[in-house]
Amino acid sequence: MSEKGKLIVISGPSGAGKSTVVFKAIENRNDVCFSTSVTTRKPRPGETDGKEYFFIDWDRYNEMVARDELLEHAEYVTNGYGTPRAFVEKQMDAGLNVLLDIEIQGARQVREKMPDAVLIFVAPPSLEELERRLRGRGTDTEQAIEGRLKRARQEYAEADFYDYLIINDDVEKAAHALNAIMDAAHCRFADKVEWLKNQ
Amino acid sequence: MSEKGKLIVISGPSGAGKSTVVFKAIENRNDVCFSTSVTTRKPRPGETDGKEYFFIDWDRYNEMVARDELLEHAEYVTNGYGTPRAFVEKQMDAGLNVLLDIEIQGARQVREKMPDAVLIFVAPPSLEELERRLRGRGTDTEQAIEGRLKRARQEYAEADFYDYLIINDDVEKAAHALNAIMDAAHCRFADKVEWLKNQ
Repeated sequence: MSEKGKLIVISGPSGAGKSTVVFKAIENRNDVCFSTSVTTRKPRPGETDGKEYFFIDWDRYNEMVARDELLEHAEYVTNGYGTPRAFVEKQMDAGLNVLLDIEIQGARQVREKMPDAVLIFVAPPSLEELERRLRGRGTDTEQAIEGRLKRARQEYAEADFYDYLIINDDVEKAAHALNAIMDAAHCRFADKVEWLKNQ
Repeated sequence: MSEKGKLIVISGPSGAGKSTVVFKAIENRNDVCFSTSVTTRKPRPGETDGKEYFFIDWDRYNEMVARDELLEHAEYVTNGYGTPRAFVEKQMDAGLNVLLDIEIQGARQVREKMPDAVLIFVAPPSLEELERRLRGRGTDTEQAIEGRLKRARQEYAEADFYDYLIINDDVEKAAHALNAIMDAAHCRFADKVEWLKNQ
């Protein structure tokens, strides 16, 4: 695998089926890996540094932010989370596409810091279907479901900087689309200009 | 097939293997067709109007140019050739991706007139390999081969408005890339904005 991999950012409402689509897409590929985030949260029993997360303290976290070593970062409740640029670059240099499942604010930061990243928004076939799926899970309160639907509508209104939209009305088709997007990204003209110049 | 098809423009030097890649790519697809050009040239024995070409006279050709009914057009020797917009739109409306194999000047016109078109440049793995292929054909004079190589270099220098570059060092891989590009094009965010707004 001599060619550099791509950073593939995937966003979309909870209930859109992102994980299912991703795992279906990559089941027969060996050129894809997941990004590993840094977090200031303490490891839970069974968690290994470098596997679920890179566990770091706040000093190191703040240092990474200050040094622009995170492609995106956000603080949730009392912990910081971020995507380490060096880790992502290392995987890409090894020829791997790096998948990053983050929210829209994070995707916006990635767009700024790595314009070459491929940004994909995964949407359910309709908001009614999203509501059905969320209720079907049986894990959310009524209030939580309404919050998620409201958030989905907000995301739809702000998502215009994404490169692609996959409508997940069929997991096989959506996974095929994700693979097509990854493979097409490796043929983008702008990335091949050096090759042409050297001909 | 409810979704509108895309116009897929394919260019590249003679000897790059465009046709081989295209036929390999579409052998298992039913959502792709070829564009049919208009020409002022007289039909040869066995040629059918609407099959090889739409055969038209110069008056009609000039009228089509004047009315902006051709997505691109060019005059070679004593005949005019062009891509009829109405025919392409009709196929796209029927859900078909329309393949158009044209030179770089035509592709530039298409980019202007149909910004949504997907422009793909197919290149041989190297100019040395292109030269080998052209010699291997045994159909060109030395002068013609040198002309083709010079033309390829010119095209490389002018091709920066294309969306994708496929390096044809392996027909299967190149065909896979072409299919990925076509399928990814159907997920472009800009084309889905209306869908999102209606959610």
